[in-house]
Amino acid sequence: MSEHTVQPSVTVLGLGPMGRALAGAFLDAGVRTTVWNRTPGRDAELTGRGAVAASSPEEAVAASPLTVVCVVNYDASDAVLRQDAVTAALKGRTVVNLSADTPGRARDTDEWAGRHGIRYLDGAIMTPAPTIGTDDAVFLHSGPEELYREHRPVLAALGGGHTHLGEEIGRAAAYDVALLDVFWTAMAGYTHAIAVARAEGVTATELAPFAQGIAAILPPLFTEFAADIDAGTYSGDLNPITSAASTMDHIVHASEAHGIDASVMRVIEGQARRVIARGHGGDGFSRVVEVIAHR
Amino acid sequence: MSEHTVQPSVTVLGLGPMGRALAGAFLDAGVRTTVWNRTPGRDAELTGRGAVAASSPEEAVAASPLTVVCVVNYDASDAVLRQDAVTAALKGRTVVNLSADTPGRARDTDEWAGRHGIRYLDGAIMTPAPTIGTDDAVFLHSGPEELYREHRPVLAALGGGHTHLGEEIGRAAAYDVALLDVFWTAMAGYTHAIAVARAEGVTATELAPFAQGIAAILPPLFTEFAADIDAGTYSGDLNPITSAASTMDHIVHASEAHGIDASVMRVIEGQARRVIARGHGGDGFSRVVEVIAHR
Repeated sequence: MSEHTVQPSVTVLGLGPMGRALAGAFLDAGVRTTVWNRTPGRDAELTGRGAVAASSPEEAVAASPLTVVCVVNYDASDAVLRQDAVTAALKGRTVVNLSADTPGRARDTDEWAGRHGIRYLDGAIMTPAPTIGTDDAVFLHSGPEELYREHRPVLAALGGGHTHLGEEIGRAAAYDVALLDVFWTAMAGYTHAIAVARAEGVTATELAPFAQGIAAILPPLFTEFAADIDAGTYSGDLNPITSAASTMDHIVHASEAHGIDASVMRVIEGQARRVIARGHGGDGFSRVVEVIAHR
Repeated sequence: MSEHTVQPSVTVLGLGPMGRALAGAFLDAGVRTTVWNRTPGRDAELTGRGAVAASSPEEAVAASPLTVVCVVNYDASDAVLRQDAVTAALKGRTVVNLSADTPGRARDTDEWAGRHGIRYLDGAIMTPAPTIGTDDAVFLHSGPEELYREHRPVLAALGGGHTHLGEEIGRAAAYDVALLDVFWTAMAGYTHAIAVARAEGVTATELAPFAQGIAAILPPLFTEFAADIDAGTYSGDLNPITSAASTMDHIVHASEAHGIDASVMRVIEGQARRVIARGHGGDGFSRVVEVIAHR
């Protein structure tokens, strides 16, 4: 490093598994890293690797032009950032909030930041902590593009792919919520499928390779479905929703025959039946997007 | 074909898109194929390719040692097979029922077949009609292994992978129901995610590549989850269910803020909250398998 180069520096607020992974990746990349956590004692391993432990959040944010926040949700980030001393120390500096919450909370935080002369980017981390610092990490960002570009070199220390989704501050959270919706609904379906299989004498381990086969057919279907919904065509040529509803009925009955709660599939079948009742039984399941969005 | 070789022959009952694909694959493989469908007029393309059109289901099943049934469900297959003339004609012959329904219906059909001296295999087709006859087709079978082996050479004409899951006749239907549970729950989650994204100004097409990224992380998680559930460990080391429930809460709120029905996620969050209320908040979401299976 030449004597004219200023060492980049960053503050990380929040040292849960994800926050520690972020701070560790900054340290590995040679970024001067200041850390703070509400509950003390989480920074030992990081300070051993060269992190600076701040004694208060205001001291932490004052140490770097960029503060990355990674706490459980925006109630938790508000509790730290919206203390007078912290807000004052952040004036003119940049906050990137990588905590997860709704688009509405991101917009609220942006408004607060604007009122206090704090530069603000919102973001989301789409991959688990062990991916941080590797090529597999996926980060989404939204907010002023110029601000994103300014901090992009330091954020690059986190590894993986970074996508700036647009200037509208809620966009990263919107993608985050939608993608976690896909994830957790799919995991709930898999967990339920395991319950049904076990009741039939099939172990989860026996079912798993076939379930992986189902996961493998999803990506191309996701593309088709998206085009179909954006175009409003809701094509049922290969699989009309009447046939899907019949399958859902089998799932409900096979579950309940073993006393297994089938509430999730009952709700999904009900959505399909509403599409059919509206006279669209020949359409694809994709038309459900209309019945859930306009109750 | 030498003069000592008997040409294999098969009967296909049910000529919807899947039944037509099955009959077409048999014809392509040089199998003598007799076809019948309740509603006439579905066999024109197949007879043009050499299929024999039977004028009644009893005539159809009498034409071959093996009858493959592919109709909408077991109410429909019962309506055909349990007519006296058809049942009588099937005596000593084999039926492979590839229609979809519950394990209970498969067991009921097996019992009926046993009473009438009909040899019976149950099966399920896990891939869409265009895969039939290609390497991508996936077939599951259950019933007597010897019977499966006897007909395996003819069934091979359907292409793809065939797995005999065991002698218990309901096993193919159990896998089928469980795997369709994974599939339709995941598709419902994706459809819901699109509704949320669109309400936030993100098109389905913009979301799709990121949703594919989520689908891509499922297969290894499916394996881990299965081992975790079979072992009863329910590990929450990387992602405790308290954190999952918090995410689910964001999804519910982000949906309902736009008037989007969040009933599916409300049910899933409720399952997670029940696990937490039982004192297992540090466990993984996998422990939900216990609360849904024992209400």
